[in-house]
Amino acid sequence: MPEQKYVLEKIFQANDNIAAENRYKLDKAGIYSLNLVASPGAGKTSLVECTIKMLKPQFRISVINGDIATRFDTDRAAAVGAQAAQINTGGECHLDAMMVKTALNDLSLAGVDLLIIENVGNLVCPASFKLGTHCMVVVASVPEGDDKPYKYPGTYLKADVIILNKIDLLPYVPFNVETFLRGVRILNPNAEVFEVSCLKDLGLDRWSNWLSTKIRSPR
Amino acid sequence: MPEQKYVLEKIFQANDNIAAENRYKLDKAGIYSLNLVASPGAGKTSLVECTIKMLKPQFRISVINGDIATRFDTDRAAAVGAQAAQINTGGECHLDAMMVKTALNDLSLAGVDLLIIENVGNLVCPASFKLGTHCMVVVASVPEGDDKPYKYPGTYLKADVIILNKIDLLPYVPFNVETFLRGVRILNPNAEVFEVSCLKDLGLDRWSNWLSTKIRSPR
Repeated sequence: MPEQKYVLEKIFQANDNIAAENRYKLDKAGIYSLNLVASPGAGKTSLVECTIKMLKPQFRISVINGDIATRFDTDRAAAVGAQAAQINTGGECHLDAMMVKTALNDLSLAGVDLLIIENVGNLVCPASFKLGTHCMVVVASVPEGDDKPYKYPGTYLKADVIILNKIDLLPYVPFNVETFLRGVRILNPNAEVFEVSCLKDLGLDRWSNWLSTKIRSPR
Repeated sequence: MPEQKYVLEKIFQANDNIAAENRYKLDKAGIYSLNLVASPGAGKTSLVECTIKMLKPQFRISVINGDIATRFDTDRAAAVGAQAAQINTGGECHLDAMMVKTALNDLSLAGVDLLIIENVGNLVCPASFKLGTHCMVVVASVPEGDDKPYKYPGTYLKADVIILNKIDLLPYVPFNVETFLRGVRILNPNAEVFEVSCLKDLGLDRWSNWLSTKIRSPR
């Protein structure tokens, strides 16, 4: 359908323009920003909670949570001390730059150092929509299986950081870390990779140190 | 964007028409059919493997696997004795009725009793596209968390069957079965629910008995 292609091009172009506006606004405010992308239940919200707890002594953090329904994740981020805004997409399978622009208007950006945007749980569609963030983080998890980079290459290709979560479950499920990492490296040799367990507090120091350096770096 | 709404309506309408054609073809061939929908890594392919192993003494089974990339899952279904066809969607986040129509042309339907269609791993988009199957099965998994029915209501609403997989991991992760089931019941009081572990072969007899009855029922 030629109309479909035309409309999609128009949508992506409009989205990219608004993403560039969002980036300008974030840069002007001196805010480093993450776009967390993952399957449902990979542990994005747990990672947000752990990251806030570790970094809040040094940095002021805001969170935007994207979900089809509920404000569960926003409540979790607020409970550990972040300013948090909820986007409920209705049925939409991803956040887009306009939704983030609207949410940025709801947040007070003065003094904020880090903005974490938690996308809708979906390993496909969010990768097609830039939000204006500085860093796209793909959160993988051990029980999902080691074949995910091979099966969802579009998302793994675009990641700046890949966090493999739930490594505490390695003894209980078939998951070969080498197979997973080989898939990551084939697609995306430059991505930073962190192996963590948010539940058992494993490997998170390396991630928070890396992120702290990024937040402090000039942009 | 009004063009966007117009194009989406056209797409859904065209899809529904082709889904009806697929259903007609399946009914005429006396085939019962499942559409498996789940997050990436919930265990759709493991469920397909277990189901084939249990039912192949009684029934002839074909499988259509949808994936963005790779034919890993088709190879797994073929290895346990099913006729299997692969659909690689490129970047598409769901199967649609036209893809299934094409795949049905590739399969030999004579004598087949059960067709299992494994959708792309995505808990959002596949629910919007009818394929023409008799039964939509949502595969949930324990490590994803008990909040998924609340957060992905569109998919849980449309399910005929919900299979909660990976119950062997209940001792190792925070997951309240009651919370999960309450979410399911609020949205969808009539869905059949099965609690299983494909890895540890738990709870699968009830599922295979239910499915056998469906396959044998007149349509």
